[in-house]
Amino acid sequence: MKNSDTNGLDFFYSLMTLENEFQDFNTFLSWFNAKAQNNKFIVEEIPFEFFDSWYFEHETKNLRHSTGKFFSIEGINVNTNFGLKQKWEQPVIIQPEIGILGIITKVFKGIHYFLMQAKMEPGNVNLVQLSPTVQATKSNYTKVHNGKLPKYLEYFTDSSRSKILIDQLQTEQGGRFLKKRNRNMVVQVYDSIPVEEDFVWLTLGQIRMALSMDNIVNMDSRSVLATIPIINVDRIPGFINSSSYSICLEFMRNTSPYAKEIFESAISMENSLLSFDQVLSWITKMKSIYELSVTRIPLCNVVDWCFTDYSIKHESKPFFSVIAVKVQAGNREVIQWTQPLLKENNLGLLGFIVKKINGVLHFLVQAKVEPGSFDTVDLAPTVSCSNYSQVLKSSERPPFLEFFENPIRESILFSTIQSEEGGRFFHFQNLNMIIQVEEDNVIEVPDNYTWLTLAQLMKLIRFGFLNIESRSLISSFSLL
Amino acid sequence: MKNSDTNGLDFFYSLMTLENEFQDFNTFLSWFNAKAQNNKFIVEEIPFEFFDSWYFEHETKNLRHSTGKFFSIEGINVNTNFGLKQKWEQPVIIQPEIGILGIITKVFKGIHYFLMQAKMEPGNVNLVQLSPTVQATKSNYTKVHNGKLPKYLEYFTDSSRSKILIDQLQTEQGGRFLKKRNRNMVVQVYDSIPVEEDFVWLTLGQIRMALSMDNIVNMDSRSVLATIPIINVDRIPGFINSSSYSICLEFMRNTSPYAKEIFESAISMENSLLSFDQVLSWITKMKSIYELSVTRIPLCNVVDWCFTDYSIKHESKPFFSVIAVKVQAGNREVIQWTQPLLKENNLGLLGFIVKKINGVLHFLVQAKVEPGSFDTVDLAPTVSCSNYSQVLKSSERPPFLEFFENPIRESILFSTIQSEEGGRFFHFQNLNMIIQVEEDNVIEVPDNYTWLTLAQLMKLIRFGFLNIESRSLISSFSLL
Repeated sequence: MKNSDTNGLDFFYSLMTLENEFQDFNTFLSWFNAKAQNNKFIVEEIPFEFFDSWYFEHETKNLRHSTGKFFSIEGINVNTNFGLKQKWEQPVIIQPEIGILGIITKVFKGIHYFLMQAKMEPGNVNLVQLSPTVQATKSNYTKVHNGKLPKYLEYFTDSSRSKILIDQLQTEQGGRFLKKRNRNMVVQVYDSIPVEEDFVWLTLGQIRMALSMDNIVNMDSRSVLATIPIINVDRIPGFINSSSYSICLEFMRNTSPYAKEIFESAISMENSLLSFDQVLSWITKMKSIYELSVTRIPLCNVVDWCFTDYSIKHESKPFFSVIAVKVQAGNREVIQWTQPLLKENNLGLLGFIVKKINGVLHFLVQAKVEPGSFDTVDLAPTVSCSNYSQVLKSSERPPFLEFFENPIRESILFSTIQSEEGGRFFHFQNLNMIIQVEEDNVIEVPDNYTWLTLAQLMKLIRFGFLNIESRSLISSFSLL
Repeated sequence: MKNSDTNGLDFFYSLMTLENEFQDFNTFLSWFNAKAQNNKFIVEEIPFEFFDSWYFEHETKNLRHSTGKFFSIEGINVNTNFGLKQKWEQPVIIQPEIGILGIITKVFKGIHYFLMQAKMEPGNVNLVQLSPTVQATKSNYTKVHNGKLPKYLEYFTDSSRSKILIDQLQTEQGGRFLKKRNRNMVVQVYDSIPVEEDFVWLTLGQIRMALSMDNIVNMDSRSVLATIPIINVDRIPGFINSSSYSICLEFMRNTSPYAKEIFESAISMENSLLSFDQVLSWITKMKSIYELSVTRIPLCNVVDWCFTDYSIKHESKPFFSVIAVKVQAGNREVIQWTQPLLKENNLGLLGFIVKKINGVLHFLVQAKVEPGSFDTVDLAPTVSCSNYSQVLKSSERPPFLEFFENPIRESILFSTIQSEEGGRFFHFQNLNMIIQVEEDNVIEVPDNYTWLTLAQLMKLIRFGFLNIESRSLISSFSLL
């Protein structure tokens, strides 16, 4: 397999490319909309008694699949010294296996294309969204079972078929999963490969364009896309003084000032507020100060939560609930299953505040403890709350929320609605927003927040420090 | 506080310095030996019934301190798919707090000096060894208690008093502690500070010289020293082509060929067998494939282990045992306490095989699962076993052990006996050994081993990927 190094600008070229060998962006959109409209699936909420293959375990009422596979829903008791609420119990998804979320890339006429799939997930508001080439469980890729393997999986498991470009452990929602991680992979193929039905080759520029629209690119895709650096600065020592830098500037001459600022932030290790050693020290301190103790408990013992015929829900507060759905394909092929999902009634908010410091865009990052965090503290967006509209009215408002209330139009760099993963979450959508504040705006920053450049964030992503909500936002920048 | 960047060679200069402003190496040795000989402590094994302040909890027989502080000894049940033995139970040290291991550095006449302490720990074979400036528990540095604080602690907790150079979370022995980590810190002071009794300023060159001798530098020191890069390559873009590189070569003109090879390996990101992305991918794969499930159980339930009057030990195998010691100071001041320790009867072995690949020294690293691993897999030396002499005779020999049996003299780059931390371990010593094999020696490497340069290892150390045994070995290179 080829192992030659590239000039480090591969992904940048793809990001700057909206024209496509195969179809232009509008043709893709039509294709995608047709896939969405022609899908024959019907999803309906059902009472738990209609569950097929899922059951509540006798003594604990933990919710499990009859095969013992997939995931289970159980209870946890949480104790922490972080935040306002430091003690509570809640249901959580238990799925200790490490799965693969993988995208295949291939170069056509010098440009990287990415193989994406239009895929139905029962929890999506629009059912079909764009997913990575492969979403595989561990039993898939270790071949424990002889079941049908996901298409294209062999390119991620057989090293003779591809070159691995990116391969990182990344976490899932720490508020809903217990220490769940997936391998996020990008592999490059050199030989020609078949494009199966529902699959499509897109440039990064086209994917990011789709990300400027609501609910097209699913969370698994956004998680993988966030790991793809704009520029592989590591491969270009002294990038700022190199000819590669001039090439980039020339490419970007017609882009927006905002795109140029994002670009500068993505390559800037020098003009950052903190040195990278200081960033690591801050993270070390946060992980040392904050404590998190999580004990698994039977689902039936979770205090303040109750079971009804249709859901497991909080007795008084508008949190998520656990529901059952039946999924049916309306075509002649008989496909039907039931499964639990976590339902969210309210739109959430994921927001970064960005601001120029030393002439470079910095992101206000929060060191946050979530009950399912893999290592106590993850780097989260400035604000993240799952019940945005409720919180706005409440007295328990997280810091910096006011920046996202009625922001002036000019300050909004990005604002779309995106879905959490539709295989686990039912109609869980978040407003993804980035707000820029003026350079002279003095913002008082609590100890567990700091300003980082995009280059620093990308360096931290490689080692799994960013939570999925930050990664979702970071996946969404367009340079066009 | 000063925040100016240096030329990235600070630590290198200190490594190359054996002459000292304050005392030469022999004077230091005399001082150290005097401290060791003049210490008035007596440590003796006692039966558990003579424990003072420590007790066995009624139902579980877990071993605890009456204040609930310090640490406890409990049982774990271990299940893994790694290695030959995949299911067992054992006692383990539980100490969930993150403590500080910190060294103060200060520049005198352009050279970094490090403030080390001659400190008694009851488990040391020679009682006194060289420890970091500060070993502090979390209750020390968060000021929960009003007790006496360790000397110099304020330089690690008050940011106005020092500049933090290194601040990383690092793990302890995964075979003996459950997910224990400490902050490993190096802070630079600019103002003059008092040198208390038992403290001494040493250059890195002097410390590494002490590391070429048995049992002088304790494990906590070695853990912190391993985090100090030989060259801060990040700060010198294009180091190999820079004038800094020529300065280094000039400094090293009289050093051994071995020192030059270590130096080249420490700066070499380019001629490595694997790219850094490939290294991360290999680690990701190892963490995905290997599984570890650890359940805490009452100490009294640990199968195959039994309680006697003097120890908790394995019924048939020569593992560690839990014992009680009484510590007494023989001088007029009445100092006396009892505490548990983990006793090891056998010398262990920690060994790296190194080999030139592409002209650069590479280290054969093992991805290893240990029951107390923080994240399932850590990077371990080629060979690590706590009962070396027993294992040599056994049929269950770990891979590569034969390289460390009667090696020819020319292949031994490093061979000393070092102690594990004497506050928890009683007479636990490991042979620390590095063996170089010829470039044309074809070595078959199992999937969970790979060859890495020192530069790659140093990059991984920053993010906590190396276990304490690898770090111990890496702390020991001398460039003199």
